[in-house]
Amino acid sequence: MLNNAGSGRSLGLVFLNPSLRTRVSTQKAARMLGMEVMVMNIGQDGWALELEDDVIMNGTGVEHIREAAGVLGRYFDILGVRTFPGLKHQKADYAETILNKFIAFSQIPVLSLESATRHPLQSLADLITIREHTVSGNSPKVVLSWAPHVKPLPQAVANSFAEWMLAAGHHLTIAHPPGYALGKAFTHGAEITYDQDKALEGADFVYVKNWSAYDPYGTMPPVQDQWMLTENRLPGKDTKIMHCLPVRRGLELGHDILNGPRSLVLDQAENRIYAAAAALKWMIEQNF
Amino acid sequence: MLNNAGSGRSLGLVFLNPSLRTRVSTQKAARMLGMEVMVMNIGQDGWALELEDDVIMNGTGVEHIREAAGVLGRYFDILGVRTFPGLKHQKADYAETILNKFIAFSQIPVLSLESATRHPLQSLADLITIREHTVSGNSPKVVLSWAPHVKPLPQAVANSFAEWMLAAGHHLTIAHPPGYALGKAFTHGAEITYDQDKALEGADFVYVKNWSAYDPYGTMPPVQDQWMLTENRLPGKDTKIMHCLPVRRGLELGHDILNGPRSLVLDQAENRIYAAAAALKWMIEQNF
Amino acid sequence: MLNNAGSGRSLGLVFLNPSLRTRVSTQKAARMLGMEVMVMNIGQDGWALELEDDVIMNGTGVEHIREAAGVLGRYFDILGVRTFPGLKHQKADYAETILNKFIAFSQIPVLSLESATRHPLQSLADLITIREHTVSGNSPKVVLSWAPHVKPLPQAVANSFAEWMLAAGHHLTIAHPPGYALGKAFTHGAEITYDQDKALEGADFVYVKNWSAYDPYGTMPPVQDQWMLTENRLPGKDTKIMHCLPVRRGLELGHDILNGPRSLVLDQAENRIYAAAAALKWMIEQNF
Repeated sequence: MLNNAGSGRSLGLVFLNPSLRTRVSTQKAARMLGMEVMVMNIGQDGWALELEDDVIMNGTGVEHIREAAGVLGRYFDILGVRTFPGLKHQKADYAETILNKFIAFSQIPVLSLESATRHPLQSLADLITIREHTVSGNSPKVVLSWAPHVKPLPQAVANSFAEWMLAAGHHLTIAHPPGYALGKAFTHGAEITYDQDKALEGADFVYVKNWSAYDPYGTMPPVQDQWMLTENRLPGKDTKIMHCLPVRRGLELGHDILNGPRSLVLDQAENRIYAAAAALKWMIEQNF
Repeated sequence: MLNNAGSGRSLGLVFLNPSLRTRVSTQKAARMLGMEVMVMNIGQDGWALELEDDVIMNGTGVEHIREAAGVLGRYFDILGVRTFPGLKHQKADYAETILNKFIAFSQIPVLSLESATRHPLQSLADLITIREHTVSGNSPKVVLSWAPHVKPLPQAVANSFAEWMLAAGHHLTIAHPPGYALGKAFTHGAEITYDQDKALEGADFVYVKNWSAYDPYGTMPPVQDQWMLTENRLPGKDTKIMHCLPVRRGLELGHDILNGPRSLVLDQAENRIYAAAAALKWMIEQNF
Repeated sequence: MLNNAGSGRSLGLVFLNPSLRTRVSTQKAARMLGMEVMVMNIGQDGWALELEDDVIMNGTGVEHIREAAGVLGRYFDILGVRTFPGLKHQKADYAETILNKFIAFSQIPVLSLESATRHPLQSLADLITIREHTVSGNSPKVVLSWAPHVKPLPQAVANSFAEWMLAAGHHLTIAHPPGYALGKAFTHGAEITYDQDKALEGADFVYVKNWSAYDPYGTMPPVQDQWMLTENRLPGKDTKIMHCLPVRRGLELGHDILNGPRSLVLDQAENRIYAAAAALKWMIEQNF
């Protein structure tokens, strides 16, 4: 038990999308801090939320986010929200429409459990993991390397990873195929290349992750080269491989890498507990 | 924390239908009392219940309510049950067939989390809310006003609200379109009118709620007039508006009312916690 | 509260299949021991697991069991897993492929909440129930009697019941129609007969349960005789009837038996709490 900073405080976790690591690690973190925690699967335990303002709710939306968030704000001290982007409307997704409505209408502190454009608890866990595996005194070379997938995924994990690595002062190289540039707001200061092999040279940490195109938004432009990493693609034996999970084996990353000692994916997942605990502790200290 | 009246006692919450406020507020209430609480979504976590006696269970019903309730009665000290009416068979719904089977077969005290014909925890929360917003010494004029909806809803909230307001000694006016009379057992003593405007005159609290017809049961007789309330329909500036939520904005109630200072809907939702805590505390004191 | 053996220990319960008794009783047991407990419905809260090794995950499987189990092993001290057999491939089911992958990849102690071929917590609860209802000094005659069903069910409960009764030194008779022989590994030492009436003679405990054929695996060979037990089929008035639940009334067992004093089904269900508590306490003592 970290300490009892959260005693007498309650945390509501709202999942508009599925989750395994986030669901479990955030609950564990809350309980470590002595908080009461409750999980709600919106649309499954409850009902479909209406997100648009000033509409006539005569369709499938059963409750408006104004009331849903407002009520949860009365029931909890802190609200955690997971909401994926629709990947249809760049402007609405990048305005974080849904997360911001939860913030506005709940009127309590809101913790992102991954939103349309960012996944900060993942990035904090990733940063902890990199620190744990960095040889003292060294400044590691960190690479974010695009990977193939079967369907368009959000840019959230990639955005946040770039943002946090750069904010932490790490040298970051981002390798992706043509057409997959991330939003500049997140990558300013990173070295960006289409040459995956060159990016891998001398890398200490390679973060493997798929994302769909930022422009044209949510598309999957065709990719010529082989972007999935396998053992024989990695130059250095000490290069560590990271992924936020879930990972599509044999598609995003080779089985050999994931089964071997380079993989830090379980350490990253475990550090989600401590990332969430740190964030919750800070929120409690700031707000109550 | 209210007190520790529930320490060492366990509460099982059985949801045969979706729920947000009830699910969260009842859990919070139980924990406030020191109770252990567990939530079960029947049909989702478990399996479909067979409700009929003496049938051959060779269809989709996987477990009979006799066994399901019996087992839950062995696992918990108090059972909370949410079950909506089918709205097909008035007699079966108004006999509270399902709730009564849970009571009979669990052999432990059962707390209604809304049943076919009543929603007592909502009405207790509504009564608390009215008391909180009543000017000391005044006897408020309370109105229950029917509202439009896209599908037939139970009469449970309206029945209970009428029953509790009348039992509390409040003057109650019920306004609804022709064809939407509630069961007389619940409304005896109320003033009933088809004239919504007249009912609103001098009203201190207007409870807005849709319900389907009691006779012919579960139907939606056509309605001529505009029954949705908006700001310009309300005569007094101090008239408070209530709704049990979820509310269909722009259909049951105007956005302007819900966004403004008249609305007590979040207070009502918050008071669900204290209503549930009071009921559970009373049940514990009566039974153990 | 049994004792505080589990204090500071956490239990994760992974359900790949629905559950009522197991879900509730195991949670209760864990809390009795002071453990933290969390429930995950894989495929519902999370996502579909890929179970095959070395495949290219370009289909519906979102996360490989290697990562899912590995992560859960980092989050919990003990993992409970429920997984039903596919009933298509006898060899894979009887190799307990899924359960063994959870054991291998989680790297923490795993508690079976019913697996492809065994349901040990049920059998321990059954053994407790038989002891509670056995006249002191007597060696009871125990019968496992096949029952009809509408769909092919696993052999897990029957396998475990036979295994545990024989291990406990009880005389066990297994009655089933031709074609429904269980695997010999589980029934060695039992008396096996196609004659249900004869098996019932002098029986103290009759465990009623359907299972599908072991060979040809997962099939339902046609059955001539009436195998459903009703009151008039039972020779002795003291014969007790057991079933693990859920039971199909009127198909597996007569309503008269289930409604009467012979039935021990609720006692069995209640004893699931104590069986789980005993197993968890033992696992904690062995491992930590």
